[in-house]
Amino acid sequence: MERAQIQGLAAAARNASIALAQLDAKIKNAALTAMAGSLEAQSATIIDANKKDIAAAQKDGLSAAIIDRLRLSDTRVKAMADSLRTIASLEDPVGQKISTRKRPNGLVIDKVRVPIGVIFIIYESRPNVTSDCAGLCLKSGNAVILRGGSEAINSNIAIYDIVKGSCKSFGLPEAAITLMRDTDRKAIEILLAQKEYIDLVMPRGGEELINFVTEKSRIAVIKHYKGICHTYVDEEADLNMAERICFNAKVQRPGVCNAMETLLVHKDVAVRFLPSMVKKFRDAGVEIRGCEKMRSIISAIAGPASGAKDIKAATEEDWYTEYLDLILSVKVVEDPDEAIAHIRKYGSMHSETIVTDNQRNADYFLKKVDSACVYVNASTRFTDGGEFGMGAEIGISTEKLHARGPMGLEELTTYKYVIYGNGQIRE
Amino acid sequence: MERAQIQGLAAAARNASIALAQLDAKIKNAALTAMAGSLEAQSATIIDANKKDIAAAQKDGLSAAIIDRLRLSDTRVKAMADSLRTIASLEDPVGQKISTRKRPNGLVIDKVRVPIGVIFIIYESRPNVTSDCAGLCLKSGNAVILRGGSEAINSNIAIYDIVKGSCKSFGLPEAAITLMRDTDRKAIEILLAQKEYIDLVMPRGGEELINFVTEKSRIAVIKHYKGICHTYVDEEADLNMAERICFNAKVQRPGVCNAMETLLVHKDVAVRFLPSMVKKFRDAGVEIRGCEKMRSIISAIAGPASGAKDIKAATEEDWYTEYLDLILSVKVVEDPDEAIAHIRKYGSMHSETIVTDNQRNADYFLKKVDSACVYVNASTRFTDGGEFGMGAEIGISTEKLHARGPMGLEELTTYKYVIYGNGQIRE
Repeated sequence: MERAQIQGLAAAARNASIALAQLDAKIKNAALTAMAGSLEAQSATIIDANKKDIAAAQKDGLSAAIIDRLRLSDTRVKAMADSLRTIASLEDPVGQKISTRKRPNGLVIDKVRVPIGVIFIIYESRPNVTSDCAGLCLKSGNAVILRGGSEAINSNIAIYDIVKGSCKSFGLPEAAITLMRDTDRKAIEILLAQKEYIDLVMPRGGEELINFVTEKSRIAVIKHYKGICHTYVDEEADLNMAERICFNAKVQRPGVCNAMETLLVHKDVAVRFLPSMVKKFRDAGVEIRGCEKMRSIISAIAGPASGAKDIKAATEEDWYTEYLDLILSVKVVEDPDEAIAHIRKYGSMHSETIVTDNQRNADYFLKKVDSACVYVNASTRFTDGGEFGMGAEIGISTEKLHARGPMGLEELTTYKYVIYGNGQIRE
Repeated sequence: MERAQIQGLAAAARNASIALAQLDAKIKNAALTAMAGSLEAQSATIIDANKKDIAAAQKDGLSAAIIDRLRLSDTRVKAMADSLRTIASLEDPVGQKISTRKRPNGLVIDKVRVPIGVIFIIYESRPNVTSDCAGLCLKSGNAVILRGGSEAINSNIAIYDIVKGSCKSFGLPEAAITLMRDTDRKAIEILLAQKEYIDLVMPRGGEELINFVTEKSRIAVIKHYKGICHTYVDEEADLNMAERICFNAKVQRPGVCNAMETLLVHKDVAVRFLPSMVKKFRDAGVEIRGCEKMRSIISAIAGPASGAKDIKAATEEDWYTEYLDLILSVKVVEDPDEAIAHIRKYGSMHSETIVTDNQRNADYFLKKVDSACVYVNASTRFTDGGEFGMGAEIGISTEKLHARGPMGLEELTTYKYVIYGNGQIRE
């Protein structure tokens, strides 16, 4: 696409956002419900388009993990439709009064939620992001420019055309939702310079994409960056629960950002906990990389038959690594403070959990760990817009400003102050 | 200062922020109250230091406006102390529960306010910013690095030393508040690269400073940028009230960002409203630059004696200009929509006001104008942390993300999710 064409598309999105900001919730909800129905009714069309992407991905030799994220089925299309229905059922954030204060001079100052404006989302692989983001942005009154990966382009176009059709039949502005059919990087770069028209850029994807966007953008960026998530098994943990939580956090879906990458175990339970936990992981095909203490416990307790000598020593780099795979680094720590310090040093402030029956230790951990999501006695895998009750998510922010963790409707808004006077002037 | 020294200072601020985040409100409030007392008690020391800055500024030929912003008096020092006392009296935002949700699987998800971390504030002239920002950051649990202008360095050091003394006597971390004594730009540039240690940069100042910071920063920036504020006098305005509000918004303190720069008048009241309003402005020394319609009204109605022929035609550039001076651009508009479109095109989304007795017109304007602060029947001059009841302000955000308008304690926080489970794993 030509630069002027791309600028025109961004300008049109800005215009659409002005109308969208004023749109009645009833119309938005009706459009969302219609979108959901159309997606289900045309599931076969979507899956046909998806087959082309899958075939191309296989031909290009993309990894099994990417092909899994790419693949659609009737069930997955139904899940996309259900997300749109959930979004329709949620309260409209636009116009909500966040607070109100009356000043001694009689001014009444309301803080009111308003849409952000135009949001540019750059993502990879999973085609459900197309309908999730279209739905969340529409409900929150924002115009959206979607730029999915080239590997999912046929699926994305099929979903987009259906969603767009529903928008049209409800009289929504043409440019409320825009899909970039041009998946060239150059087109991204041009869009990242349109600060007059675009208010927020959200890159979801690998490190290389995120760095590219951060470097080129003249617009505010909220990154959906990596998750180096930790589980800390406390000295007073219920070890059966700890085993279930750790196994779930690592194995249930290792390729996602809320999966556990590092397990921290209190030294006083390490001997009781680690041998069976490690065996369970290894049986499930998880490669373990451990600290010295952990390795010596396994070889001393579990014995040579456990394959303990195969456990690699974790390097300094391991603690910094988001494996997104069946690999886990394990460290034995002296106390909660060492666990907290480790998380602070090596973590990515995404999601961490403590397993403990001791309320004081739990509170200490929850207070001291400054990550977007801090859990007690639950798997980190719950860091997800759907699981948080947001219907879907536009991404999981690893930033500290504006929004942290799963971003739903509320996080897609900003606010303005509306001030009512009766002639007040400043003395 | 050497690069390593500056990095050390940023790292120390990061460490201090960890302790500050856990600090009890009582200790913070006691320190703030002590600071206020010390400032007042040592007012003479501060004013002596300030005299050096004033003398240097006069020698350097700085403008009267800058010298006014620079100058301290007993009254101004007392106002600084009062701000700290107000900040002490406000509720501690840290630890506040913003929302809580219980999920069907039993997880309880609390959204809890936490400090941002380390905040770097770059400002010019006004030395009260030193104590205001130190106070707001302390109360909100953030460490702060202050970099005031070289023109105010003696005043800033005097204030800082006093404030710092109070911190010390309450056992607060040494690096909770840091003042850059090195006012070289190079030092700013080094700090803007410390994204490991600093979470937020807030430049307050002229366009050149803001552009420098935005370009160089590797850290999130919230700009305190220009205010091209509008007053729209509606066809159903109380014209006496409109005159008072317009006069206040332009003349009471023209050099600040919330002063009116452009007056928009509905065509149906222009003939009744403009002649006396313009006379009042001109009597107060305000230079008027008008649209064609406005100029023809003045020369037709007010006659040659009014000096109407001296009213310059406003150029396209005038509508985009923040004068920060006794200059005003004036435009006659067809209807509220033209006023709103003008504000959207030329404004800086800072503060706008409508003067009207018609509720419908007011609501329409309030809803359609997307600025940080939108008023009805009040002067735009109220866009200010103190006037909003925030005690003081760290700045007035002209961004759309994280915070808009005056930023007080709440805006200096972010949040995290604290999630309570009893063994939940993801199916």
